[in-house]
Amino acid sequence: MNGYSRARVAVLGASGYAGREAIRLLARHGRAEIALASSESEAGAKLSRMVRGAPGIALTRIAEADFAGCDAVLSCLPHGESSKWVEKALGAGARVVDLSNDLRVIDETTPEWGRGAVYGLPELHRGRISGATLVANPGCYPTAAILALAPLVRRGLVAGPVIIDAASGVSGAGRSPKRELLMAELAEDFSAYKVGNTHRHLAEMRDQTGALNGGAGPELVFTPHLLPVKRGILETIYVPLTAALDEPHRPWLDDYAGEPFVEVMTDRLPTLADVTGTNHVSIGVQPVADTTRPMLIIVAAIDNLVKGAAGQAVQNLNLMFGWPETEGLT
Amino acid sequence: MNGYSRARVAVLGASGYAGREAIRLLARHGRAEIALASSESEAGAKLSRMVRGAPGIALTRIAEADFAGCDAVLSCLPHGESSKWVEKALGAGARVVDLSNDLRVIDETTPEWGRGAVYGLPELHRGRISGATLVANPGCYPTAAILALAPLVRRGLVAGPVIIDAASGVSGAGRSPKRELLMAELAEDFSAYKVGNTHRHLAEMRDQTGALNGGAGPELVFTPHLLPVKRGILETIYVPLTAALDEPHRPWLDDYAGEPFVEVMTDRLPTLADVTGTNHVSIGVQPVADTTRPMLIIVAAIDNLVKGAAGQAVQNLNLMFGWPETEGLT
Amino acid sequence: MNGYSRARVAVLGASGYAGREAIRLLARHGRAEIALASSESEAGAKLSRMVRGAPGIALTRIAEADFAGCDAVLSCLPHGESSKWVEKALGAGARVVDLSNDLRVIDETTPEWGRGAVYGLPELHRGRISGATLVANPGCYPTAAILALAPLVRRGLVAGPVIIDAASGVSGAGRSPKRELLMAELAEDFSAYKVGNTHRHLAEMRDQTGALNGGAGPELVFTPHLLPVKRGILETIYVPLTAALDEPHRPWLDDYAGEPFVEVMTDRLPTLADVTGTNHVSIGVQPVADTTRPMLIIVAAIDNLVKGAAGQAVQNLNLMFGWPETEGLT
Amino acid sequence: MNGYSRARVAVLGASGYAGREAIRLLARHGRAEIALASSESEAGAKLSRMVRGAPGIALTRIAEADFAGCDAVLSCLPHGESSKWVEKALGAGARVVDLSNDLRVIDETTPEWGRGAVYGLPELHRGRISGATLVANPGCYPTAAILALAPLVRRGLVAGPVIIDAASGVSGAGRSPKRELLMAELAEDFSAYKVGNTHRHLAEMRDQTGALNGGAGPELVFTPHLLPVKRGILETIYVPLTAALDEPHRPWLDDYAGEPFVEVMTDRLPTLADVTGTNHVSIGVQPVADTTRPMLIIVAAIDNLVKGAAGQAVQNLNLMFGWPETEGLT
Repeated sequence: MNGYSRARVAVLGASGYAGREAIRLLARHGRAEIALASSESEAGAKLSRMVRGAPGIALTRIAEADFAGCDAVLSCLPHGESSKWVEKALGAGARVVDLSNDLRVIDETTPEWGRGAVYGLPELHRGRISGATLVANPGCYPTAAILALAPLVRRGLVAGPVIIDAASGVSGAGRSPKRELLMAELAEDFSAYKVGNTHRHLAEMRDQTGALNGGAGPELVFTPHLLPVKRGILETIYVPLTAALDEPHRPWLDDYAGEPFVEVMTDRLPTLADVTGTNHVSIGVQPVADTTRPMLIIVAAIDNLVKGAAGQAVQNLNLMFGWPETEGLT
Repeated sequence: MNGYSRARVAVLGASGYAGREAIRLLARHGRAEIALASSESEAGAKLSRMVRGAPGIALTRIAEADFAGCDAVLSCLPHGESSKWVEKALGAGARVVDLSNDLRVIDETTPEWGRGAVYGLPELHRGRISGATLVANPGCYPTAAILALAPLVRRGLVAGPVIIDAASGVSGAGRSPKRELLMAELAEDFSAYKVGNTHRHLAEMRDQTGALNGGAGPELVFTPHLLPVKRGILETIYVPLTAALDEPHRPWLDDYAGEPFVEVMTDRLPTLADVTGTNHVSIGVQPVADTTRPMLIIVAAIDNLVKGAAGQAVQNLNLMFGWPETEGLT
Repeated sequence: MNGYSRARVAVLGASGYAGREAIRLLARHGRAEIALASSESEAGAKLSRMVRGAPGIALTRIAEADFAGCDAVLSCLPHGESSKWVEKALGAGARVVDLSNDLRVIDETTPEWGRGAVYGLPELHRGRISGATLVANPGCYPTAAILALAPLVRRGLVAGPVIIDAASGVSGAGRSPKRELLMAELAEDFSAYKVGNTHRHLAEMRDQTGALNGGAGPELVFTPHLLPVKRGILETIYVPLTAALDEPHRPWLDDYAGEPFVEVMTDRLPTLADVTGTNHVSIGVQPVADTTRPMLIIVAAIDNLVKGAAGQAVQNLNLMFGWPETEGLT
Repeated sequence: MNGYSRARVAVLGASGYAGREAIRLLARHGRAEIALASSESEAGAKLSRMVRGAPGIALTRIAEADFAGCDAVLSCLPHGESSKWVEKALGAGARVVDLSNDLRVIDETTPEWGRGAVYGLPELHRGRISGATLVANPGCYPTAAILALAPLVRRGLVAGPVIIDAASGVSGAGRSPKRELLMAELAEDFSAYKVGNTHRHLAEMRDQTGALNGGAGPELVFTPHLLPVKRGILETIYVPLTAALDEPHRPWLDDYAGEPFVEVMTDRLPTLADVTGTNHVSIGVQPVADTTRPMLIIVAAIDNLVKGAAGQAVQNLNLMFGWPETEGLT
């Protein structure tokens, strides 16, 4: 249906962490050919120098990028910067996955051309992604949180404010040189940031969980932490329930049966190590023994650069082009 | 007032992480002299080989320890093991600080001789500690949680279940060789454990917060995590309030004014690095912007081996002997 | 040519770090099928629980392993333990790659049946490995050192004692629980061990470099260090030369042209991150500016669990069975 | 004897890692009072906010610093920047310890006013430091290397090129934001840099070891590595000897007897953890078992920010003012 057995793909912002991970994944992808890669800080360098096995093309400045020969574009450009290049790529006829925050929440500030962007969480929106020209790739924290919460929200089981306590490895903060991201600052430290519902990912979580329940999603409180590891996100999510569940894992087992990248753990809870380097989300649940109102704790883990960014982008690309969903991701 | 200008101190279990930290602190203490140190795994070795600046006495097996010449005993023995040696030390006339879990919660299982143990959190029980013969040194997680919550609980401001989401460095898991504590297992990993209110520190938190409010403490949900750092505990605590606070920091500023080891941060939230290597608890608070019911997030940090163990034990020792409370701790 | 399009493979000691890595690699290998996996500590558990994507067979105790249906055996058993099971597997008709130290150096203590073991460094002994029934898989430190030094030794360019200063991630020390390998001991630490030419890998390095030069190999001094990272080996090797080289990289470029797993870096020196997770050895060289006698510094990096253990074992397996050498390794 | 029971001290560049460590040490020093602290990036902030226990003065820009009331100045300014402020401080009558590289090697480029700078390694030059107005504080790598080598060099026991293979924690690279120092780059990595005798510390090592032997110091080869830890330096030093030593530790035991900050280990070799947070250098030696020419391996460890920077600066300050050498350092 999508008419492509292969596609020429551009990666914008290829020298950031998500961009580089996209190059890694595409370099071993059976149907995508990396036709263009942009980077401001490493323009001129050979892509194969940055990622072993990548093609030997030179990285170009974004201003010099020519989308004419590209069937698809993955934009790993910074928030705010991304949308103008996404618009240009669409104009040149390419299908686009935008990894930035720019089109994840559609509201009155969204430009006309971007309003049709599909939220690229395949486990929720596979059908719409398959026919899409423009996909907004989910944020890293929302990917884990939404997939963790969806089975409860859909069933109307959430009885009160949900606490999403999350921790991310430092690659989530990007590759721009900042003092507070130096290893000498972060090693052996651990901190909460954007405390008090001030992180931009919250809108995305609310939007998506709300849509699962007719617009009336659960109240969410979200606190991210910075973890002194390279990559990975672990979320510990506290959900007050309308009623205790007889089989606590059942909603996830049912909703995610057959999903290639969701692992529901029934005998223990996931840790970062279960998902690092993979496109999986691992989810486990544990009822709280002794609260007045029933409460369930969900622990969900992803690799922020794979399922939380580049891996999910490739998964979306596969769907957009009608390729096997797991191509390049196993 | 307590009649000692100096005291001879024994440290039991001196080669574990808390024990070694106790030796470090006592080695530079102006009034305590380390008279005895026990260790099963390193018996016979010189204490000064283990900690620079410590006296050159040999570590002895606990079975060979003679408490006769000791004015005070710090027991860093494992839970369950500690109480029989504490009883023996008391019988020999020593004052005792027990760092184990054995006497922190007094209930029907507590032996008669242990029922008078004072819970050694100086910021709450300074008066009783000052005259005490037997002090139960608080657990690491409870130290941070109780000090963080006390100002709200006392004022009856807690309106519902409190979520205590906590993370500890690996020294908190002890020094016994276990596969799951190997660096090759833990580096770059992060995990929740004892999820669902199954950690033994919860009873201690409930007991102490309950006592602050006439026995009816807040409902608590406590989830510890294992953090890939050597030391330090950070707790992110979610508290539903009966009413929003005009001055969110006021209760802590008022209750802890003049406390030498409590730092109330009013312009940012604490991180591990603020407290590592010190006997301080740092506490910051942040209201949540947009919940239906007012919610406050408290972030509290301690060094699990200092304020969470050996430092607090020395603080208690100072109080028990009528010495300056900060002696050896600054 | 070796008559197998596919083979049934057993992995002995599958729950150690090298064993688990072997399972990971074989699980995505196009020609090998994991038919048996042994582990004492995790016997009974499902292999797929340990490694995502592995077959769902149960791990068995080594004493209950039946080699009858196995075409090949990879032994990741401890040194000293391995040889008796290798002998048994050979007796059952399997081809064997022994990852232990037991057969790497053939001397008077080597049992008769083991004397024909081929040293499994494909870049030096590809021809002999291709026809072999029994391969001794090289040690991790020797793999990097021998490949780094071979081009100079072969050309008779080494003029004096070679210093091999090496550092390994902690997975190199194995998965047995030992106090000195706890994360609380090793994090933020760095140490030399087996200093003064007392590490057993030295014999292997001497044997192999000697063989390249008619038995008279260079004098070697080898100091390993323990690095607070999970995996990877970096060796900094100081070589006094008989004469300065006009083109310092030339010997490596010539000798390793076309090698699929050797990367000669001509514009910078390798770091751990260049090789982590891959079967590559990366080698760079740098002349010393100002010594009386010409000196070259070689920096070589491998992943100790891949090229230094399981990856090289799979590379050997591929050669032994006449499969493409890179199968399962890219 | 130097006429000061107390002194008012300025710290220039107080927000860098060495500067902040200097503030930490001086804040608990019994005789020094921090009178001024400069920082460009944190000008205006309160010093007590940066370091607990420091005075509540505001950090000032260096251009606004007034040295008039300062008895002493510690300059932690960058190399090249430091000297003009050192000159100014001297002009204002202050005694100066310069922690930069600017005055460590006196040559024809050294300005007239700086030629009398004393190299501030107390264990070698205590007498000259005691009367000094201007002290050049040694580099971190040279501190460990020179103290490790001095006993052999003095005795004429070095027979050939000495290899100094060294590794430093990331705080050694400073606090300026650079991409290559981000935690997401450095965690789990390890690399050599400035390979081939191109690091500026080499001149300092040659100068000082040469001076110990009438100007003809040993040939040195120095390779630094970047270690993924916060702080600490470990050097593994390979020394060809003119003759084997009967008692390998004897030269160090003799030369450093009574030194408060040198620890000669006779039963094992030092690791980073032995020195982190202290002003000690720990030194161990190990003969190589089986080389043709006798060789000794020295392992030396320091904390790069303490004995390798701020701690040694305070040690020098103590000597310059006639205070107890260990004041503020134990």
